Amino acid sequence: MSVSDIETYLKQTASTRLESYLEFLRIPSISTLPENESNCRDAASWLATELKRIGIENVEVSETGGLPMVYGDWLHAPDAQTVLVYGHYDVQPVEPLDAWESAPFEPVARGNGVYGRGASDDKGQIHIHLKAVESLLATRGDLPVNLRFIFEGEEEAGSANLAPWLKKNSERLSADVAVISDTGFFDGNIPAITIGLRGIVYIQVDVTGPTIDLHSGSFGGTVQNPANALCGIISRLKDESGRVLVPGFYDSVVPLSDRDHKALAELPFDEAEYLASLGVSDAFGEVGYTTLERRGARPTLDVNGMWGGFQGEGSKTIIPASAHAKISCRLVAGQDPDDIFSKLTSFIGELSPSGVETNVEFLSGGRPSLTPLDHPAVRAAADALLTTFGRAPVYVREGGSIPVCENLESILGLPVVLLGFTPPNDNAHAPNEWMDLNNYETAIRTLVVYWDNLATLSR
Amino acid sequence: MSVSDIETYLKQTASTRLESYLEFLRIPSISTLPENESNCRDAASWLATELKRIGIENVEVSETGGLPMVYGDWLHAPDAQTVLVYGHYDVQPVEPLDAWESAPFEPVARGNGVYGRGASDDKGQIHIHLKAVESLLATRGDLPVNLRFIFEGEEEAGSANLAPWLKKNSERLSADVAVISDTGFFDGNIPAITIGLRGIVYIQVDVTGPTIDLHSGSFGGTVQNPANALCGIISRLKDESGRVLVPGFYDSVVPLSDRDHKALAELPFDEAEYLASLGVSDAFGEVGYTTLERRGARPTLDVNGMWGGFQGEGSKTIIPASAHAKISCRLVAGQDPDDIFSKLTSFIGELSPSGVETNVEFLSGGRPSLTPLDHPAVRAAADALLTTFGRAPVYVREGGSIPVCENLESILGLPVVLLGFTPPNDNAHAPNEWMDLNNYETAIRTLVVYWDNLATLSR
Repeated sequence: MSVSDIETYLKQTASTRLESYLEFLRIPSISTLPENESNCRDAASWLATELKRIGIENVEVSETGGLPMVYGDWLHAPDAQTVLVYGHYDVQPVEPLDAWESAPFEPVARGNGVYGRGASDDKGQIHIHLKAVESLLATRGDLPVNLRFIFEGEEEAGSANLAPWLKKNSERLSADVAVISDTGFFDGNIPAITIGLRGIVYIQVDVTGPTIDLHSGSFGGTVQNPANALCGIISRLKDESGRVLVPGFYDSVVPLSDRDHKALAELPFDEAEYLASLGVSDAFGEVGYTTLERRGARPTLDVNGMWGGFQGEGSKTIIPASAHAKISCRLVAGQDPDDIFSKLTSFIGELSPSGVETNVEFLSGGRPSLTPLDHPAVRAAADALLTTFGRAPVYVREGGSIPVCENLESILGLPVVLLGFTPPNDNAHAPNEWMDLNNYETAIRTLVVYWDNLATLSR
Repeated sequence: MSVSDIETYLKQTASTRLESYLEFLRIPSISTLPENESNCRDAASWLATELKRIGIENVEVSETGGLPMVYGDWLHAPDAQTVLVYGHYDVQPVEPLDAWESAPFEPVARGNGVYGRGASDDKGQIHIHLKAVESLLATRGDLPVNLRFIFEGEEEAGSANLAPWLKKNSERLSADVAVISDTGFFDGNIPAITIGLRGIVYIQVDVTGPTIDLHSGSFGGTVQNPANALCGIISRLKDESGRVLVPGFYDSVVPLSDRDHKALAELPFDEAEYLASLGVSDAFGEVGYTTLERRGARPTLDVNGMWGGFQGEGSKTIIPASAHAKISCRLVAGQDPDDIFSKLTSFIGELSPSGVETNVEFLSGGRPSLTPLDHPAVRAAADALLTTFGRAPVYVREGGSIPVCENLESILGLPVVLLGFTPPNDNAHAPNEWMDLNNYETAIRTLVVYWDNLATLSR
């Protein structure tokens, strides 16, 4: 059966497809919250059931010590390549709740989008894969390539159990290429293939002073204030031009080549529109680099959250007993998370003033990654995007971190194609996360064409 | 009847007295929380009922536009002085709740103390006044002086309605001297009369950046982070030696005289013990001043609370849309809260970096105060303390703020005696607030002697 038969099938099944998508999004699979563990397991079971239903074999909910991996395969194309497809079924927390226009776990189709936590990151993209395979198996009865699916449940929580699981299962995960759909399109909703990903190191800094909160009148002026001290530490981690001041931070960063500068400069990008869409008046970042260079090819340091003392209405006159911050650095090619953690820890220790205790805790880390641009599987993906979206993709360096990318490269030895379909303003990790329904629908067609394209490549 | 008859009466009524004290503390009269308004009004009613029961006349719960003032008087000593007694029936919030050994509004007598929110600040001290007058009226049938009581309900919320109420009622509040019992004993639990109080200005700083929380990977490095920006602002408000950097901040501070330096140096004070009791390793404050000078006679700047972004367990990779801090300055003689607010606001505006909006809001303010040391009413209080506690008081400059002190001076034209009885480690404004029961019991005797002493002074 041809692609046009698949098109007919997809048109006929549009409403059940949307219903299934919303059903998957309704499961509140927040992996960072211990109280949501059973919801995460429900999401894994939901996936296993769906995989079996559409014809995927050897489906397994595989324990990892934390949240399970979901595995399934279809291996009946002996002459074709084998593709390992990765996605993650866990989602980010949903605070601040009152900023959502509709409840995060009561997803709705509104206008041209589906709104809800996970609509784009990453349940929506998993769903695209399921529906591409379902349409192929339902219309043709087989697939043009061999596929292995692995769906993780701890991507948003630091993927602590992923690498050990990959190592333990490396024999049965043999493949020719890995495809990760956890990235998005470029500004203007232009099809994109991501060739660079930043790594991350994520820490918590706890500054403790007096045993209890102190009356700021009776004690103010006599002891170090942990909140002031924490602000002092944080303010010394970056200079006013956005350059990180941690000694040695930039030592191993691979500098941008002239070709890199040029490629990034050629990307269509309207900075004024970008800033307006974010609601900020000015760009801010390391001096000497463009916004796109800062986003994809330079490391960062950001406070992700901080708290200490009184946060209620009105005035409470205390010196807080402690103050806390979550801080993360995005890392680029050449930087090692363990090395940067160690440099951060000792610098923060030096900055900690007398009269308080400062502790630095490692929360999670991931290595940066760069993908070979000239791999045939990347070119086949580009062709599929051109065929279905009508436009050749741009090649971007994404600012986010997908630790699995580096894991699949180093543990399984696979080239990785980062083929994702979310709109660039998808509000991932924020309120009102959404997926563009045109991207979602077209992406199903892209994958069908992609698997056909890959079938023409020799093993 | 003599003081010894009163002693007998007090011994016989000890258990009902404690029960009444605990009953008063059970009312959760937190004035900063709108949802506790009815509790605050319950505390006012409780006081009015008690005042009437013990023989105080013209009792009134007087509306202010906010929480009411409770008024009552006894004016049957035509040849004696009239004393205006002030206290406040509202209390501080109770967070963090899990740090309390017993629930804040389930007060208990444990060892030599009563533990609960308000046990010392200031319900316990109001209760001391009620019981002194009750014992005098019950045993003698009259009082040696004329008394007017005014009890406020918004002291912990900034006293917005106090000054207007005092102005409106100034005619009927005529008196010779005011006594405020809202201070405490000196380190080592030494009787003390407070002669200096700091003022305060309390602000909230809100830094806002992007419209929504942004994914710190996709956007990190391109926009100003409101939490980093707020830390930068706060870190520039004080230097590393604790000196406030707001331009003009110290301009009008009355410098300490040689006599002031000497008086403060002579106070019994063990700095090592002080720091150990707070659980901190080192003192911290403005260079060039002793800890006691910094506490009582020098202005401060402290973060009372701050928050922004993700505060949960684990890692959420966002750039927060906004970050917030509550900041207060304690002020000393010569400084004006409005002037300091204006200087703070313009300096914070200058420090705010591009790419974020910074707003400064005035939450509350109070003027500093100094009391005449040689007033006969101060000397009579000192004699009463010596008689009952067996030790002459020290004269201290307290670090806290009692805006009413300045109001009684400037609006009613009264000299103010700051005669308070709480132990120095009373955990006011913190978990496990408590009152020393020996202080509480002896203070009732102190007031009886004090009113007798005042009766010997000519009007």
